[in-house]
Amino acid sequence: MKTKTLFWEKGALRLLDQTLLPGEIKYISCRDVQSAWEAIKTLRVRGAPAIGDAAAYAVAVGAFNSKAKNPAGLIKDIGKTANFLKTARPTAVNLFWAVDRMYAKALEVKNKPVSEIKKILLEEAHRISRQDRSTCKKLSFNGAGLIKDGDGVMTYCNAGSLATAGLGTAIGVLYAAESLGKKIKVYSCETRPLLQGARLSCWELMENKMDATLICDNTAGWVMKQGLVDAVFIGADRIASNGDAANKIGSYSLAVLAAHHKIAFYVCAPLSTFDFSIKSGRDIPIEERSGDEVACFAGVRTAPPKIKTYSPAFDVVPAGLISAIVTEKGVIAQPSAEKIKKIR
Amino acid sequence: MKTKTLFWEKGALRLLDQTLLPGEIKYISCRDVQSAWEAIKTLRVRGAPAIGDAAAYAVAVGAFNSKAKNPAGLIKDIGKTANFLKTARPTAVNLFWAVDRMYAKALEVKNKPVSEIKKILLEEAHRISRQDRSTCKKLSFNGAGLIKDGDGVMTYCNAGSLATAGLGTAIGVLYAAESLGKKIKVYSCETRPLLQGARLSCWELMENKMDATLICDNTAGWVMKQGLVDAVFIGADRIASNGDAANKIGSYSLAVLAAHHKIAFYVCAPLSTFDFSIKSGRDIPIEERSGDEVACFAGVRTAPPKIKTYSPAFDVVPAGLISAIVTEKGVIAQPSAEKIKKIR
Repeated sequence: MKTKTLFWEKGALRLLDQTLLPGEIKYISCRDVQSAWEAIKTLRVRGAPAIGDAAAYAVAVGAFNSKAKNPAGLIKDIGKTANFLKTARPTAVNLFWAVDRMYAKALEVKNKPVSEIKKILLEEAHRISRQDRSTCKKLSFNGAGLIKDGDGVMTYCNAGSLATAGLGTAIGVLYAAESLGKKIKVYSCETRPLLQGARLSCWELMENKMDATLICDNTAGWVMKQGLVDAVFIGADRIASNGDAANKIGSYSLAVLAAHHKIAFYVCAPLSTFDFSIKSGRDIPIEERSGDEVACFAGVRTAPPKIKTYSPAFDVVPAGLISAIVTEKGVIAQPSAEKIKKIR
Repeated sequence: MKTKTLFWEKGALRLLDQTLLPGEIKYISCRDVQSAWEAIKTLRVRGAPAIGDAAAYAVAVGAFNSKAKNPAGLIKDIGKTANFLKTARPTAVNLFWAVDRMYAKALEVKNKPVSEIKKILLEEAHRISRQDRSTCKKLSFNGAGLIKDGDGVMTYCNAGSLATAGLGTAIGVLYAAESLGKKIKVYSCETRPLLQGARLSCWELMENKMDATLICDNTAGWVMKQGLVDAVFIGADRIASNGDAANKIGSYSLAVLAAHHKIAFYVCAPLSTFDFSIKSGRDIPIEERSGDEVACFAGVRTAPPKIKTYSPAFDVVPAGLISAIVTEKGVIAQPSAEKIKKIR
């Protein structure tokens, strides 16, 4: 991947504005917490691991901007920043995970001088980002073994380089397989309403010279029926203790379709995406986004004014429909609470 | 329905230009065969029964425009017109059915004077359109018995008033149920790539004061999972002798999802949509449309240039996934070649 998703430069978090892809490659600078919050909220940065990375850097930005004269005041400010950032989006658990980790680190070093705490927080954000990269790599090569040379695979939304600081998760697995000499044919579902599949996955798959074909979401079943797909690979925004996985709306339908056609269905996510505080997918809060995302596109109204809409941003794939969860610590086949506990 | 889909006026076929809905209500006049062919090809008029009606009028237009001085010359011209119109779209069988019926009528009266033949052909087109209206009504009330007061129903693409000269087929059933005092909640899938669900079904459902909610196609499974849907009603573009039904791409996925959730799946179509010349859905030609329809959304490019696409306009729902086919002659539960033969 030539194009970085996010990085730190001259005291600011730099983000590739993914709302402009594939038409425009433009970076924005977040020099305050508000702009980072806005970037997460409006999906300029998206993908569970990348949201975590961005939020960690945003905590560091908040710390640097704090006017607190003493460590206690700084820690208080960091706490406020952390709580504010958590309101950006409700579903992806990596946001909470990263922000909590940053706050815990601040508490850990609360007796150091203010300038030192700030430096340590930036280092922690860098560490989270580095770990994301190395986690992606491990996860991707763990998953590559599930792919055979010549396979047709389907992917949904974007769980690639653009969703992480590294190789990606679900699409990372595809890159890893190709790097091992396996030729694969990728079907990328466009992923309404915000078209992350069309705009982002197709873009990065082409940038990485993969054999990619774009389809409408409703075409997935027909492509499976024709025997063109050997496996489906998706990412996740939050995985419950029992293996139920929340991911972009439409993932659940894909999982049912894959099961009907006896096609393997893989969820690829780092352990930071697991939420061990909840038992099942029933406890995962599902963000409902503006109905205008469904009734409009690019400023063009596609449905009559005042039409009612239902626009959940995510759905939940029950563990029973998941062939395996691919993590950096290994592949969990037929996931269950017990198996997941072991790998934790 | 206040707004007519198509009608004959002052020697021309008048068509509501459905590519402009819901933003604009505008009629076009087809005063030659070429413009009618273009209107069918570019989906200004669409929906299997409406395509048949339009094609029948187009044959009449062609007859009126013929410069033939004798009946034999006129019949030859009508034959050419008929063959040309058949090239507009390959899947909806009503196009072929209507054009063949018009040509057969011409042959039947080939010994009459030229002006008489032309008049008879226009009458035949009117008859086809009238029959469409009465067929829709019978079919719709046959189907209404499948709906209970308070049901949630899902519909796909547009099989309503806009797809016929009358009440509609799948949505006609919903209108009929409401007219019988049953309150229903309709989920309309937007139907990518051309958004007939968002643009057309939502528009006519609102015009008819139905309780309609727009969802993205990928949300259908999640809506079913939550128990919000009691039955799915779709139209058809061609039904094979064994009950396999071709309909808008995405219908197959919906049928699999409905089966998984034990939700009834109904195909609503007049007998003119049956193609008794073919044994199964395998023989139905599937139109593949321009990839730009997938790579663009509402005129805006959404995917990288040169991305490969797969853009079938239709798929085939196997008879085994269909709970019943609703026709003007009755409801065929668990359709099979034998049962269909009986109702023919």
